[in-house]
Amino acid sequence: MPHAADRLQTSIETTGSIACVGLDPRPALLPPEIIAGALEEFGDTALGVATAFLAFNLGLLDAINGHCAAIKPQLACYEAYGSAGLRCLEQTVAYARKLGIPVIADGKRNDIGSTAEHYQQAFLGSAPGLNVNRVPGLGADWLTINGYLGSDGVTPFLGPSPSGTGVFVLVKTSNPSSGELQDQALATGAPVMEAMAALVARWGRERVGACGLNDVGAVVGATYPAQAKRLRELMPETIFLVPGYGAQGGTAADAKAGARSDGRGILVNSSRAIIGAWQSTKTADWAGAARAALEKMNLDLRG
Amino acid sequence: MPHAADRLQTSIETTGSIACVGLDPRPALLPPEIIAGALEEFGDTALGVATAFLAFNLGLLDAINGHCAAIKPQLACYEAYGSAGLRCLEQTVAYARKLGIPVIADGKRNDIGSTAEHYQQAFLGSAPGLNVNRVPGLGADWLTINGYLGSDGVTPFLGPSPSGTGVFVLVKTSNPSSGELQDQALATGAPVMEAMAALVARWGRERVGACGLNDVGAVVGATYPAQAKRLRELMPETIFLVPGYGAQGGTAADAKAGARSDGRGILVNSSRAIIGAWQSTKTADWAGAARAALEKMNLDLRG
Repeated sequence: MPHAADRLQTSIETTGSIACVGLDPRPALLPPEIIAGALEEFGDTALGVATAFLAFNLGLLDAINGHCAAIKPQLACYEAYGSAGLRCLEQTVAYARKLGIPVIADGKRNDIGSTAEHYQQAFLGSAPGLNVNRVPGLGADWLTINGYLGSDGVTPFLGPSPSGTGVFVLVKTSNPSSGELQDQALATGAPVMEAMAALVARWGRERVGACGLNDVGAVVGATYPAQAKRLRELMPETIFLVPGYGAQGGTAADAKAGARSDGRGILVNSSRAIIGAWQSTKTADWAGAARAALEKMNLDLRG
Repeated sequence: MPHAADRLQTSIETTGSIACVGLDPRPALLPPEIIAGALEEFGDTALGVATAFLAFNLGLLDAINGHCAAIKPQLACYEAYGSAGLRCLEQTVAYARKLGIPVIADGKRNDIGSTAEHYQQAFLGSAPGLNVNRVPGLGADWLTINGYLGSDGVTPFLGPSPSGTGVFVLVKTSNPSSGELQDQALATGAPVMEAMAALVARWGRERVGACGLNDVGAVVGATYPAQAKRLRELMPETIFLVPGYGAQGGTAADAKAGARSDGRGILVNSSRAIIGAWQSTKTADWAGAARAALEKMNLDLRG
């Protein structure tokens, strides 16, 4: 499979968008007719919710296809509904793949090496069967991970370059309390997040695609633009997955603060502002509202 | 629900064991007759593997019931088989609850506050339905989490004390490369793991149960006993979940290095050495071998 960073860059160029749509369904965001249909079919159960999520997601995917660089399902939203929720996630990802939209599974997984292998199998690869078969995993292109355990919790996700898939490692997260650990000063004078950035740069070395970027990305929140500029110096070949735009307060300029001088290396996520746009604009056309909100975001990011 | 730490302490006293059995199934650990049965019923598929895992887990649970303080399913082993794997996990946890064995879901979850809420719902609580219902989650008693995002990624798991459930936060992990970030010296002179330990102690303050321990535990690997002693000073009321005993090289003394002076506050995990004991002892009685290995571990830990 071609290099994951090259495929993502191609998607950015084809769609003219550096937006990533967070497919993070929750009951409060569902249109009434979808709720009514799922309730009638499966009742107010995990399967009912998962069925509603799937109808919502498929409609959203049709609406945003061709207008965003990638989608990012937040695994927690699906896991909250157990195996029924996970089945919905599998069907959502299968449909995105059919449409050709790159998928970032947002799971922030992390564990020791032998366990990290199982996570690689679950989201990016395939797992051993009972006999000779391999059991295909979710089929995502990228997975978000947490690097707190160091190299041997990360390398199982990588494989020989190019593996065709990639990871985004948490470096500076968008939430208010991210600094409690990430900003603590090290003896070197640099904050902890810069030690993580140095590890990310090291993990990505010699994994650079034709586009000049590698397949070991970093999560860098739009809510901390000054830090993003500094982190870019430490990670010149790294794609930044940028949460925190819009709902969490980051502007377009904030979100692009960590872009390279050639403009590359940035993917900006938005979830509620896109998939819940039908509520804020008070329309029944939820798919159209999502598409319009995405086009507005694209304009904002191009400005 | 009573305080999670008190329930765990009661389980330790009732069973006379500080052992936690890692229910981490993988095809290579499955007995031949279980493989044959699942292959015949569902073929070499995700459902076949999940069916085999469930038969293995239920037999193991019957064998170890009453002889360990808790079980710890590693979520990655189940997620590698998608929604079928997750369904097996749900059935495994339901059976453990029926037997009254405390369950630690080992997922090392972490995210911003609004997402952490979904993970709380998934593993420790319940999620909103489409109408007025709540959809029950996995029903675990404890969840392992990663504190890299700071307080607002952790507090959604806690709720008003006692919530009846608890978390174990990664502090010093058992893997060889854990020091790459966790051992880096801060400006204060202390390593990063001690900053995490200070956060854990703060999160657990005023959440102490009758047993003198709180419901914000810490993961502290048996492979780093000197660090465990120091971490105990920083977290006097914290339960340590200790991986790395046995297969990873930690001895009983290493595993208990972080115990309090009253002997409390330690839960020692073992997985492969218990559930795969039938292979190393070359017996067809896999359940009996697991029970014998667990009793040997209990003796070792009591010594």
